[in-house]
Amino acid sequence: MNMEKTELLYSGKAKDMFLTDTPGVLWVTYKDQATALNGKRKVQIQGKGALNRQISGLLFEELTAAGIPTHFIKDLDDHTMLVRQCEMIPLEAVVRNLASGSFERKFHTAHLMKLTPAVHEFYYKSDALDDPFINDEQIKALGYADTATLAAIHELADRVNALLQKRFAGIGIALVDFKLEFGRLANGTLVLADELSPDNMRLVDEATGKSLDKDVFRKDAGPLTPVYQVVLDRLKGVAHV
Amino acid sequence: MNMEKTELLYSGKAKDMFLTDTPGVLWVTYKDQATALNGKRKVQIQGKGALNRQISGLLFEELTAAGIPTHFIKDLDDHTMLVRQCEMIPLEAVVRNLASGSFERKFHTAHLMKLTPAVHEFYYKSDALDDPFINDEQIKALGYADTATLAAIHELADRVNALLQKRFAGIGIALVDFKLEFGRLANGTLVLADELSPDNMRLVDEATGKSLDKDVFRKDAGPLTPVYQVVLDRLKGVAHV
Ligand SMILES: Nc1ncnc2c1ncn2[C@@H]1O[C@H](COP(=O)(O)OP(=O)(O)O)[C@@H](O)[C@H]1O
Ligand SMILES: Nc1ncnc2c1ncn2[C@@H]1O[C@H](COP(=O)(O)OP(=O)(O)O)[C@@H](O)[C@H]1O
Ligand SMILES: [Mg+2]
Ligand SMILES: [Mg+2]
Repeated sequence: MNMEKTELLYSGKAKDMFLTDTPGVLWVTYKDQATALNGKRKVQIQGKGALNRQISGLLFEELTAAGIPTHFIKDLDDHTMLVRQCEMIPLEAVVRNLASGSFERKFHTAHLMKLTPAVHEFYYKSDALDDPFINDEQIKALGYADTATLAAIHELADRVNALLQKRFAGIGIALVDFKLEFGRLANGTLVLADELSPDNMRLVDEATGKSLDKDVFRKDAGPLTPVYQVVLDRLKGVAHV
Repeated sequence: MNMEKTELLYSGKAKDMFLTDTPGVLWVTYKDQATALNGKRKVQIQGKGALNRQISGLLFEELTAAGIPTHFIKDLDDHTMLVRQCEMIPLEAVVRNLASGSFERKFHTAHLMKLTPAVHEFYYKSDALDDPFINDEQIKALGYADTATLAAIHELADRVNALLQKRFAGIGIALVDFKLEFGRLANGTLVLADELSPDNMRLVDEATGKSLDKDVFRKDAGPLTPVYQVVLDRLKGVAHV
């Protein structure tokens, strides 16, 4: 496959999505950029894009092998992967295993309180509405997803959670929470899309209790890339003390 | 039954709940008071308590007759009814048939857009947390209600909605949305509790498009009691032009 990127389809906070000369295939460039507060704070961080592309590609590959339908095709170069183009469901699906972030603040829970069953939350992706928290009936009544699609998303989210929790536990990392996005291929298949990186997960080192994710950036707690490198190295089984 | 009220159990924004000399029976006094902005605005309105007590009693009686389990025992006097004491589920269950209020503001929908299926929303009753919007998984993980209780609440809310929508349609009133509270009797039965009044419903006159509910007070659109009187009179089949 000698792929050429063509038109820029969308430039987001973390990635650029390009059309290619192959219909249905997108060229995704992971940016060397970190944002917080829904884009209001924005910083260039060299090496971040490549780390996220690698972590994301590795996890998509493993989930695909475990039977999860995903948009992933293959890694291309340092910052780039190819994915199948989707019509996106305009929802962010958050899965929480332990209380943190907005959940902890909203309900005044203990930090990292265990949540059983895992909590699913949806946020409607809309810059104009500031990504509001939305429940299943609201999603249906507003037509953002139908009953069958929501049921499939809940089920996929649980399966992805079980696989990722186990995978991270095996390398000494607690999967606190994460955000997923889903889309439909042209043939109608629902797939896991977007990315799977520490930008969209809360990961806590079980030995030290330290954050191994974007919270390091959100809380201005030091450089980000060494932390993402730890996650990548552990996932790849590279010794790292 | 010669009932005596004893200790004040709880004084809320709209009602006082007293224990009585009969265990398990509460004496509920509907107050001549209207509040908005979660109690920050508070006004005395003579006659409001009696109207709400009558509307609430009438609707509880009809719902009970239609097979809905409720806390209602009987009306006692002008401002007072007897109900069965519950352990309350700490949730407000909102049912929306047409977009209005916070829903319309949050999702920028057309005013009174039809919502199909009817939207259910839960708010966690907590003054400290400012009654946050909460979804089903959050409710379960935080232990506010279990799966079976939530399923029963959804089902009861739909049945109450069907009955009330039909009842109000028969007297020329659109049931836009309403708030319910549920509780458990000592024997474990889940029942519809609290009140059923225009304080907790949005009602729109189908002929004129005018509000027949607490929005008149929220929007400072004139005196409240004549409007509540219209609702009561229509429910009682009293001619009213
Ligand atoms: N397979 C796909 N097909 C089409 N769009 C996708 C696919 N995967 C992710 N997207 C969308 O592309 C964008 C990715 O860029 P990103 O920088 O994450 O954007 P944002 O700032 O909106 O989060 C998102 O809007 C995401 O929903
Ligand atoms: N059957 C019942 N048993 C016990 N508590 C009840 C019952 N019905 C309603 N309540 C509770 O009593 C209070 C009613 O008073 P209200 O003025 O509505 O209070 P609030 O200002 O908290 O809304 C509410 O807290 C409500 O949950
Ligand atoms: Mg994104
Ligand atoms: Mg109340």
